[in-house]
Amino acid sequence: MSNQSNLRVTVTDHNQKSDPVLTTLAETTQRNRVVDVASRLAEMRDWLRNDLVELEEGLSHIVQDPQADLAWAAAEYLLQKAGKRVRPICVMLAAQMSDRAFDHEVKQVAICAELVHTATLMHDDVIDQGEDRRGRPTARMVYGNAASVLGGDHLLVDALQRVHSTNPALTGSLLGVIADMVHAEALQLELRKSFRPDRNLYQQVVEGKTAALFRWALESGGQLGNLAPEQATLLGEVGANLGMTFQLIDDKLDLCGSPEETGKDTCLDLREGKLTWPLILAAERSPSLLLRLRHIAGSDHDPKVGEIAQMVEEIRNTGAIEDTQAEAERFAQLAANALKKLPSGRARDALQAVIQTALHRSR
Amino acid sequence: MSNQSNLRVTVTDHNQKSDPVLTTLAETTQRNRVVDVASRLAEMRDWLRNDLVELEEGLSHIVQDPQADLAWAAAEYLLQKAGKRVRPICVMLAAQMSDRAFDHEVKQVAICAELVHTATLMHDDVIDQGEDRRGRPTARMVYGNAASVLGGDHLLVDALQRVHSTNPALTGSLLGVIADMVHAEALQLELRKSFRPDRNLYQQVVEGKTAALFRWALESGGQLGNLAPEQATLLGEVGANLGMTFQLIDDKLDLCGSPEETGKDTCLDLREGKLTWPLILAAERSPSLLLRLRHIAGSDHDPKVGEIAQMVEEIRNTGAIEDTQAEAERFAQLAANALKKLPSGRARDALQAVIQTALHRSR
Repeated sequence: MSNQSNLRVTVTDHNQKSDPVLTTLAETTQRNRVVDVASRLAEMRDWLRNDLVELEEGLSHIVQDPQADLAWAAAEYLLQKAGKRVRPICVMLAAQMSDRAFDHEVKQVAICAELVHTATLMHDDVIDQGEDRRGRPTARMVYGNAASVLGGDHLLVDALQRVHSTNPALTGSLLGVIADMVHAEALQLELRKSFRPDRNLYQQVVEGKTAALFRWALESGGQLGNLAPEQATLLGEVGANLGMTFQLIDDKLDLCGSPEETGKDTCLDLREGKLTWPLILAAERSPSLLLRLRHIAGSDHDPKVGEIAQMVEEIRNTGAIEDTQAEAERFAQLAANALKKLPSGRARDALQAVIQTALHRSR
Repeated sequence: MSNQSNLRVTVTDHNQKSDPVLTTLAETTQRNRVVDVASRLAEMRDWLRNDLVELEEGLSHIVQDPQADLAWAAAEYLLQKAGKRVRPICVMLAAQMSDRAFDHEVKQVAICAELVHTATLMHDDVIDQGEDRRGRPTARMVYGNAASVLGGDHLLVDALQRVHSTNPALTGSLLGVIADMVHAEALQLELRKSFRPDRNLYQQVVEGKTAALFRWALESGGQLGNLAPEQATLLGEVGANLGMTFQLIDDKLDLCGSPEETGKDTCLDLREGKLTWPLILAAERSPSLLLRLRHIAGSDHDPKVGEIAQMVEEIRNTGAIEDTQAEAERFAQLAANALKKLPSGRARDALQAVIQTALHRSR
């Protein structure tokens, strides 16, 4: 406990305008009192400070076209409300595995990873009809569906142009990842017609919509660092498992996160009958929950707040929430195992801290 | 007149399942009795018949994923309701300028041009909130916004992957075109806040949203046919002017086309206060129309049918509609002038027929 409160001071001391990203990352874990991780993140912050300032600086110059305010403003709105920037940090750390500096090329690929992520969030907001994201109304609520669609298109094309002009060898793999993401979103849309607690389908969706970009970020970073091909592939494996960890915790936070911390509506997945891991487990264990989830997904039935609270309580009672945490831990372990096969050093330690952050985050 | 009715018979004779595209092209002009063009199109049809069958066959295999019916069905819905296929025909004819056959590579680039066009239509339907397209309800009316956004994303990525895997040298220029299209759409969205009859802004929007892809289709086709760089550039110029012609006629048909022929809502542009050429001319010539257009664009005012009919009548009285046709003729002439500098032959004649079709079409 005393370590924890020391850490809080440290984090506050470092909470300068110049490095909001790692402060965000550290805050996501310190509330969970994962002291080890948070102190490692504090070290990482000192080390990466300048690179992260450059990253933010790069991201702040993406969306500028005075003639087309609306769509650009929608993109900027989401991009400048700094998220965790985990994907660009992955690119950066993977390149650092072989001491490649955060030079122009690495920076462009890192920015690209964040842009693709943000673009999919913008299109997702239209698709999901979400109302809150990162603690603010979604772009589509502020700027309308049109600006969210165009803003997302803009970021996607910008990301592709950026990679293609600095490292065309990565264009093909990036296109493959975007195709995977779109296919996974389409599959997820299809699955909403009826709730089917199918673990294989879940795995397929998450590999496409979340794991693929993490895999690409780490593998591309490794390639930029001129790692041996098998090492870059290993980094990709770290990324895919890190992505699964991320998504499983997202699934869990939908049910038991605090909206103030996550910055998202709670129980949005549940209210839409979306296929998440805790809902699959709960439906497997309770025929009554399965029936109600089917009812929600298959109809326009919009459950009331009391009904939702009751369902969350029942889901919790099946043990589905803690078992989702356990499943996330299993993937974090797979990521860590792959990581251990790579050269030791600061970059590897920092990636291990990222994995732990993903696992213990509360937002 | 007797020529005209002979032609009609000829067209009907050729109206077989195997070549709906050129039948469509021919039908768009014969109603306007442009006999010369229609008979040249009939020749072109005989010549290109096999290639067009292959093109349709290729397009029919784009969207297949039994797991993700909804988004794919939305894409297929629009793609299989054959449009005029003008962009792939441009690729095909440009490659034929140097007798390059419609081989695998040319076919992929031709398909790509149609996919990019269709993808933007899908996103446009969400942006414009249009209800009819090609004589049927828009994809978003049938499948919802979500499927239209994802279906569009899917076609865009498919197009990029297709070009990148068959001819990576074209990836950069295609990304540039897509960026231009997105920027033009964003600018157009911005301009809807208030109606400003600004000719330069109009030119900017149309160059991006319509002319850029026509330019790319013809220039890329020329490159595939190994034309000299300056000849490929000339073909690009033909394309840009053809695109302007196309858009100007689109603008005109919004005001005076028949919904049965165009397959689109009439006066959609007018009802949204969109910046089109006839509306710019009318606003320049009538202060009263300018005021009403400003009122429509700047507010949620949804003009009634009678009000719209009255405005169309007044717009017609300013001469704006015939002067839009004249402006389209000017661009068609620029396209024809550039075309004349290229080697003569069947491909050049066919491209000239395409330009005339664009100018005299009624749908």
